[in-house]
Amino acid sequence: MVPAGDHRGDEIEALIATMARLPGLGPRSARRIVLHLIRRRAGQMAQLADLMANVARNARECLICGNITQSDICPICEDPARATGEICVVTEVADLWAMERGRAFRGRYHVLGGSLSALDEIGPEDLRIPQLIDRIADENATEIILALSATVEGQTTAHYIAEALEPTGVAITGLAQGVPIGGELDYLDDGTITAALRARRKF
Amino acid sequence: MVPAGDHRGDEIEALIATMARLPGLGPRSARRIVLHLIRRRAGQMAQLADLMANVARNARECLICGNITQSDICPICEDPARATGEICVVTEVADLWAMERGRAFRGRYHVLGGSLSALDEIGPEDLRIPQLIDRIADENATEIILALSATVEGQTTAHYIAEALEPTGVAITGLAQGVPIGGELDYLDDGTITAALRARRKF
Ligand SMILES: [Zn+2]
Ligand SMILES: [Zn+2]
Repeated sequence: MVPAGDHRGDEIEALIATMARLPGLGPRSARRIVLHLIRRRAGQMAQLADLMANVARNARECLICGNITQSDICPICEDPARATGEICVVTEVADLWAMERGRAFRGRYHVLGGSLSALDEIGPEDLRIPQLIDRIADENATEIILALSATVEGQTTAHYIAEALEPTGVAITGLAQGVPIGGELDYLDDGTITAALRARRKF
Repeated sequence: MVPAGDHRGDEIEALIATMARLPGLGPRSARRIVLHLIRRRAGQMAQLADLMANVARNARECLICGNITQSDICPICEDPARATGEICVVTEVADLWAMERGRAFRGRYHVLGGSLSALDEIGPEDLRIPQLIDRIADENATEIILALSATVEGQTTAHYIAEALEPTGVAITGLAQGVPIGGELDYLDDGTITAALRARRKF
């Protein structure tokens, strides 16, 4: 038996294998992308490698909201126009990005980094909930919008947060219309997210 | 209107946009892959950037066969055990890789780099056909296997090569059974390619 990649060379083989493990890709799509890039190796491929190295070096979580960015404080938290007193709580960074595509929300975010889960042993202290409580006082927040997925875990998390925030007296709302049962926020179209935000209801 | 990516930062935005242009990807899959990588930025992402930079710097076409590799002569052309006198002519590097996955062929390859096409103004001199003719003498080739796609352009190219090689007296065969009409070689399973190679017929 000949090793599978002996006809290409080690680095090309390793590049294909690494690409094949990325979400949504596999061996065939990885081979196709790598060949495409090698044909453009002096231009697009070298640029992509540079960009990726820079992002790997510079990307970090915003110290306030948990958004992924390239500075300690993200552009949203730094924007004084977005200090509206509204904080939108999302599960993951992908959900924040989805909300921003909708362009309906002009306040700030708080990324939990996951959902409560007894099975996966994820508790409130794993989800940046204490930091959220601190922010309500620090930022004089008047409304917390719980933009969590309409899944069992998302709703369990929402109920937990609503109870934890009750002593602060802040208004707590949740996305209403438009989020389908079992739906992941990141998979919704922008219009649905916008409609759900506009029709938000008291939790 | 807010610029689409102002919530992320320029480099993350540029990385997503570059990934989204790769074959088979789009904005959603690019965002998903970039977030996945950023979560692994110290490990997998930095490694992938390094690999990609190295391949961009070192990848080149084998001076003999046109395979993509990291040295002037590819591992197949360097392997004395593969000097069998059989040269398998393929359209693209992806087809060479597909043949190697089948593991049925133990000779060498010749990558044309495309198909003859009046429409795209691709002529014989664009396809490394003169180099193929030189190789037949240099390597004392006894059989040329035309492993070209069963498309109109692939078969036009095969007929042209068969005519151009006639004066050399070399045996010319083509893949037979198993290549479906209109089928691209790179999309066939390994077993089909192996069967087609074993049942190759005189052209
Ligand atoms: Zn932030
Ligand atoms: Zn070679």
